[in-house]
Amino acid sequence: MGGSLGLALRAHTDTRVIGVDTDTEALRVALAVGAISEAADSLEAAASEAQAVVLSAPVPRIPELARRALDHSAPGCVVTDLGSTKAGVMASLAPGDRERFIGGHPVCGGERTGVAFARQELFRGATWFLTPGPEARSDLFQRLHGLVASVGARPVAIDAGVHDRLMALVSHLPHVLAGALVNQAADTAPAGREALRSAGPSFVDLTRVAGSNPPLWADILLANSAAVLRELRAYSARLADVEAALERGDRDWLLGFVADAGEARGRLRRAEDREPADATRVIVGVPNRPGAISEIATALGHAHINIEDLSLRPGPPDGEGELVLLVESPAAAQEAVRLVGERGYRAREAR
Amino acid sequence: MGGSLGLALRAHTDTRVIGVDTDTEALRVALAVGAISEAADSLEAAASEAQAVVLSAPVPRIPELARRALDHSAPGCVVTDLGSTKAGVMASLAPGDRERFIGGHPVCGGERTGVAFARQELFRGATWFLTPGPEARSDLFQRLHGLVASVGARPVAIDAGVHDRLMALVSHLPHVLAGALVNQAADTAPAGREALRSAGPSFVDLTRVAGSNPPLWADILLANSAAVLRELRAYSARLADVEAALERGDRDWLLGFVADAGEARGRLRRAEDREPADATRVIVGVPNRPGAISEIATALGHAHINIEDLSLRPGPPDGEGELVLLVESPAAAQEAVRLVGERGYRAREAR
Repeated sequence: MGGSLGLALRAHTDTRVIGVDTDTEALRVALAVGAISEAADSLEAAASEAQAVVLSAPVPRIPELARRALDHSAPGCVVTDLGSTKAGVMASLAPGDRERFIGGHPVCGGERTGVAFARQELFRGATWFLTPGPEARSDLFQRLHGLVASVGARPVAIDAGVHDRLMALVSHLPHVLAGALVNQAADTAPAGREALRSAGPSFVDLTRVAGSNPPLWADILLANSAAVLRELRAYSARLADVEAALERGDRDWLLGFVADAGEARGRLRRAEDREPADATRVIVGVPNRPGAISEIATALGHAHINIEDLSLRPGPPDGEGELVLLVESPAAAQEAVRLVGERGYRAREAR
Repeated sequence: MGGSLGLALRAHTDTRVIGVDTDTEALRVALAVGAISEAADSLEAAASEAQAVVLSAPVPRIPELARRALDHSAPGCVVTDLGSTKAGVMASLAPGDRERFIGGHPVCGGERTGVAFARQELFRGATWFLTPGPEARSDLFQRLHGLVASVGARPVAIDAGVHDRLMALVSHLPHVLAGALVNQAADTAPAGREALRSAGPSFVDLTRVAGSNPPLWADILLANSAAVLRELRAYSARLADVEAALERGDRDWLLGFVADAGEARGRLRRAEDREPADATRVIVGVPNRPGAISEIATALGHAHINIEDLSLRPGPPDGEGELVLLVESPAAAQEAVRLVGERGYRAREAR
C-alpha cells in the first residue's frame, strides 16, 4: 500500500518521496520500481525533513511509529497512517499529538502485499477515510486532504469510532464469513474436494477475500474486536432467524428475507452507479483555531456529503478565515450550509 | 435457463426444439429470439413426439410435470429437469418412472430470469450434474449425457442426496449468508446508507448474489431445508468459535483460522486452473440391463473423475455390450478401471 502511494504521488505530483523500511531489500525494490525517489536510514531522518509522514505498517505498530514521527518532524509536518482500524491509534496519542496526527484509511488493496506488486492507480476512485481528532490543525488537515485527492481517491472525514464500526460491518465481518465458509467446505470430507471443484459462482464470490494475509487480518480483527464482536453477534442472530424459518417451513418469511436483501442490494448498486452532478461551492467562515476544519469536514462526512475539493483562505491573526468546499450538487450544498450552521459557523452557497 | 438451452441446442446441434409455456407471451419471445423452433399448445402434445423432455420450472412443480411428461411420451424418450435440488423430485417418482426420468442441474445462471435474457453460451464450461437413479436406462442416460456435452457443459453423474448436500454447502448457504449480510447493513441505521456507499470490495463480493429472485430462492431453501439446516448449524458453530477467540484475544487461533482459509482457497484456485491432460479411454463391459451405465457414471462422478465423452456399443440381446468412456488422464483412467472393477465390471484402459 505504501509502495502504491509512492508510485501514485510520483506519477501525479512532483512530490519527493523518501522511503524508510527496516527491510533493506524492500527499499531496494521500491527504488527500482520507482515507488520512492530516495531511501533514508531511519524514520527519524526521513521525518526531520518531511511535510507529511505516511505510516504504512501493521496496526499494532502505528502508535509507536506515530510517536517517533511526531517527535522528529517539524511543527508544520502532518503525520498519518494507512491502517484499517482507527480508534485505537487515535486514543493512543495525547491530545497535543492529535494536532498533527490525522488517521487515514484508503479502502482498497490487492490480494498481494509487497512493494513489487505496487500499482500507481490503486487509489483511483477509492474512498479514503480521514479521522481528524477535535484537536487537528486545519492547515494540516487541508494538506492531507489535498494529498489524498491528488492520487485520485475520495477523502471522507469520519469519526474514528464510527469508522471502526462501519469497517466491522462492511469489511471485517465479511472476511470472517468468507473464512468460515471456505474452512467449512474444506472440512467437509470426502465432499470437500468435490465441493471446491464444483463450486458455483456464489461460492467463488463469497470466498474470494478468504485467507489473505493471516498476520494482517489477525491484527485487524483484534484491533477492532469490540465492533467486530457486535456485528458478529447481530449476524449470528440473523442466521438463527433463518434457521427457525427453515425449521417451521415458513415460505413467507423466506420470501421476505430474500426480497429485503434484493431491495438493499438494489440501493447499493444505485449508490455505486450514481452520476456526477453539478458541483457547488460552499463558503464557511472559520475562526483560526485548531479543530474547526476537521469538525466541519467530519460533520459533512457523517452526512455523507462528499467534499470534492477543499481550500482555506486564512483571515487575520485571531480573526476569521474562509473555508471553500466543493460538494457534488446544489442539494448537498444546501444540506452542508444547514449542518455547519447548526454548529455555529456562518456558511453560504456560492455557484 | 430453458431459453438459453434452446438457443444453445439450436446453435450447436440440429435439434428441433419445441417450446411449451403457460405464458404465451414468453413463448412468443422465445420464438422471436430463436430459443425454440416451434411452440406447442401443451406439455402432452410436445412430449408425444420428443426424444428428450427438459423441464425448466420451479422445483415444487417438477414432480407433477415429470409425471405428465412420462405419461405422454414414447418409451424411448428421456425426461429431465433443470432444478437446483434433486432428492425431492427423484423420491417423488416410482422406481419404474426413474427408468426414463434422470434429474439434471446445470450450475450456472445469470441474475436475470426470463427468455429475453437467454444466452446460448450460458452452459459453456459449467458443471451439469445428472442424478440417474439405480433404475436409469443406459441408452437414455447416454443420450442425456450427449445432450449436456453438446452445449459445452461438463456432465457429472452424482447421487441425488449427495448433490443436495453439496449444493447446500456451495450455493444455498452462501445465498443465505449474503442475504443476511446485506440485510444487516441496510438495517444499521443511520450508518446503513453510509455503509452501502463506502463498501469495500469484500462487501461487494459477498453480497453480489444476495436477493435475486425471491420465489425461486424461497423454494430452493425449502426444498433442501434438511441439508441447508445442517450446513447452517455447522456454520453458526464456526462463527461462535471466532467469537470466542475474539473474546479471549487469541491471536494464534485467529492466525490459524485465516491461514486455513488461505490454504483451502488456494486448493480451490488450483482446481479452477487445472490444465487439460492426456485424455484416455476406458472400456467397460456392461450387461444389457438398466442401471449399469448410471452406476458406473455415478461411481466415477463421486470420485470426481470427469467423463469427457461416453458411448455405448451394444452387445447381443441378453449379452454384454461395451461402454467407452473418455477420461481426462491416464491416472484418472487407472482409477476408473479400479473403481468399476470393484463393482464387478470388467474394465480396461485403451490409449
